[in-house]
Amino acid sequence: MPELRKDPILGRWIIIAKERSRRPTDFVIREQIVKGGFCPLCPGNENTTPEEVLAYGRNPSHPPNSPGWEIRVVPNKYPALVIEGDLNKEGVGIYDKMNGIGAHEVIVESPNHEDTFINLSPDRLLYVFWAFRDRLVDLGRDPRFKYVMVFKNSGKDAGASLEHSHSQLVALPILPRMIVSELDGSLSYYKYKERCIFCDIIRQELREEIRVVCENDHFVTIMPFAPRSPFEMWILPKKHSSSYITTDDVSFIALAKIFSETMKRLDACIPDVPYNFVLHGAPMHSEPLDYFHWHFEIRPKLTTTAGFEWGSGFYINPMPPEDAAVYMREAFEK
Amino acid sequence: MPELRKDPILGRWIIIAKERSRRPTDFVIREQIVKGGFCPLCPGNENTTPEEVLAYGRNPSHPPNSPGWEIRVVPNKYPALVIEGDLNKEGVGIYDKMNGIGAHEVIVESPNHEDTFINLSPDRLLYVFWAFRDRLVDLGRDPRFKYVMVFKNSGKDAGASLEHSHSQLVALPILPRMIVSELDGSLSYYKYKERCIFCDIIRQELREEIRVVCENDHFVTIMPFAPRSPFEMWILPKKHSSSYITTDDVSFIALAKIFSETMKRLDACIPDVPYNFVLHGAPMHSEPLDYFHWHFEIRPKLTTTAGFEWGSGFYINPMPPEDAAVYMREAFEK
Repeated sequence: MPELRKDPILGRWIIIAKERSRRPTDFVIREQIVKGGFCPLCPGNENTTPEEVLAYGRNPSHPPNSPGWEIRVVPNKYPALVIEGDLNKEGVGIYDKMNGIGAHEVIVESPNHEDTFINLSPDRLLYVFWAFRDRLVDLGRDPRFKYVMVFKNSGKDAGASLEHSHSQLVALPILPRMIVSELDGSLSYYKYKERCIFCDIIRQELREEIRVVCENDHFVTIMPFAPRSPFEMWILPKKHSSSYITTDDVSFIALAKIFSETMKRLDACIPDVPYNFVLHGAPMHSEPLDYFHWHFEIRPKLTTTAGFEWGSGFYINPMPPEDAAVYMREAFEK
Repeated sequence: MPELRKDPILGRWIIIAKERSRRPTDFVIREQIVKGGFCPLCPGNENTTPEEVLAYGRNPSHPPNSPGWEIRVVPNKYPALVIEGDLNKEGVGIYDKMNGIGAHEVIVESPNHEDTFINLSPDRLLYVFWAFRDRLVDLGRDPRFKYVMVFKNSGKDAGASLEHSHSQLVALPILPRMIVSELDGSLSYYKYKERCIFCDIIRQELREEIRVVCENDHFVTIMPFAPRSPFEMWILPKKHSSSYITTDDVSFIALAKIFSETMKRLDACIPDVPYNFVLHGAPMHSEPLDYFHWHFEIRPKLTTTAGFEWGSGFYINPMPPEDAAVYMREAFEK
C-alpha cells in the first residue's frame, strides 16, 4: 500500500509509491515512451487494463471492457494511491503518515492510437470534458476524498509514459497544498474587496487585451501576469463558478472549442511541444464559493526546474507573457 | 532590466528575465553543456567574465582578474537580477511588480576544468564553503537584499549550462516563498513545543538511525521523512544555529568532510547523477532565531515533475528514504 507522509516543517504531503523494488541505478535510465509495439490503451487490449469505470459510445448490447468505445476510463495499473482501505492516520515520533488511499484513473481520449489531444475533433474533446465531469461527480460520493486532481502529461519531457492520448485523475484524501494556497489567497482578496479575484483578473485582461490569447462567449484564454514558465496559459469561464461539475451543456461545447483553439495555436507556435494541463476547482463536498473560480492551467514544458526554483519556489521565466500572447494571437497568420 | 512580478492569488513572485529576445521555437532546442571548447571559467579567460568580486589563493602582487586563483567569484554574465537600481515597487491594475534588483554570482570552485564537486579535495571544498560565507556577509550589508539563495546545479538535467564546476548565488529583494513557509512552519512548532523542530528531527533520527546517511562530531546527513524525490538529503549542524555565517572554523572543516562523504556515497550509488543543492538559512539582517536551523538540501534529479506535482504541489516518490539510506550507508561496501 502506498503511504502518505507529511513534511513536519512545511506541512507538505508526499506519496511514497513503491510500485516495484528498484535499485538506485534504475532511476538513471529514464523511461522512454514506447513508439509502436503493444499499446494497453488500444481497442482489443481492454483485458490488459484494470476493469473500466466509464465508457462512452459502445453499443449497449456489448459487454464492458470490449471494443467499440469512444472514450474509456480505467484505473491506473500502477496507481500512486489505492482505492481500498482506511486512512489510518498515525504519528511516528514527530512525524505524521497515513495510508495511501485514493483513486488514480486514466482517461483514454480516443480509440485511435494516432490521435493527439491537439487534433481531437470538437465532438471527441467534448466527450473528454464530460468524462472529467462524470468521474468528478462519481468520486465526489466517496467521503474519504477531499480533492480530485484532473491533469494531462503530454510528451516525455512532461512526464508521459504512454504514447496513446490520455489524461489522468488522482482522488486525494487531503487538500493539496497548491489548492489550499489558491483558496487562501482568493479568500483574502474576497474579504478585502468582496469580489472574486479571478473575475477581476478576467475583467482587467479583457479590457487591456495584452495577455488575452483567444475568447468566445463563455470562456477566455489568458497568459497570467506572473507565469512560472514561457507560454503558461489559463482557460477560465467568464461567468463566475467555483466548480467544474456545474458547467452546463452549452458551456461545455464552448470549452471544447476554446481548448481546441488554444492548443492548436500553441502547436502552431511550438510544434510538438511537451505540456501539462491541470484542472483547478473547489474541493469535493464544498458549497459554491463566491471567492474561487475554476479554471484550467496549461504549462508547455520548456524550461528545466533547477536548484534556484527548487529551493526558493521562485521561478525565472525568460519570456514576458505579453510577448508570448502576441505570438499566440498571430499563430495562424504565418 | 529584469522584472519581478507577483501572482495576485498565490503571492508567488516570478522573475521575467528577458536576457535576449527569443522566438517561441528557440525554447525547444534545449541548451546542451558544451564539452571541450572555450570555457569562460578557466584560468586565462578571466577577461571574458564580469569583474571578480572575490578570489582566494592568488599571489597578492598579481592583479585581480588574472590567473593564479584557487576559488573565484564573479557576477553572472546573464544575470537573473541586476545589482544597480532602485526597487520601484508599483501596481499595474490589480497586479504588483518591481524592478529586478538583486545579485547573481558564480562561485568557480576550482581552476581545474576537469575537477568535479564530488572529487574536490577537502581543502578546496573548505574554500568553497568559506566563499559562500564571505559572499553572504558582504551581500548582507546591502539593505535592499532580504535573502541570498546559495545553490548548485550539476549536470544538464539539473539545469547546469557550463561544464566547469561552479555554484551560484542569487540575492533577492524579497523573501522567497519556500523560506517563508519554512520559517512559518518551524515557528508554529516552536510556539507549541518551545523547541526547534530541526533539533527534534536530528534527535529522533540519531536515535532511530534508519534515515541517517553519515555523521561526524558537528554535522549529520539524513534522508528527510517526507522526501520529494529519491535520495533527497539534508545536511544539518548538530548544534542549533539559524545562520550559516556564524559557523566556526572547526565546524567548516567538519562540513567539508561530511559534504564530501555524502556526495561520494551518492556517486557510488548512482554514478554521475545530476543534482542540485541549496543552502537554507535565516533571512539577511535577522537576529539569531531559536526556531530555525540552517541546513543544506541535496536533490539528485531522478524524476520528472509532471502535471500532478505541478498542479498539486504534492510529490510522488517511488523510493522510501529508509531504503535509500541503506543504499547510501552501504555504498562503499560494494
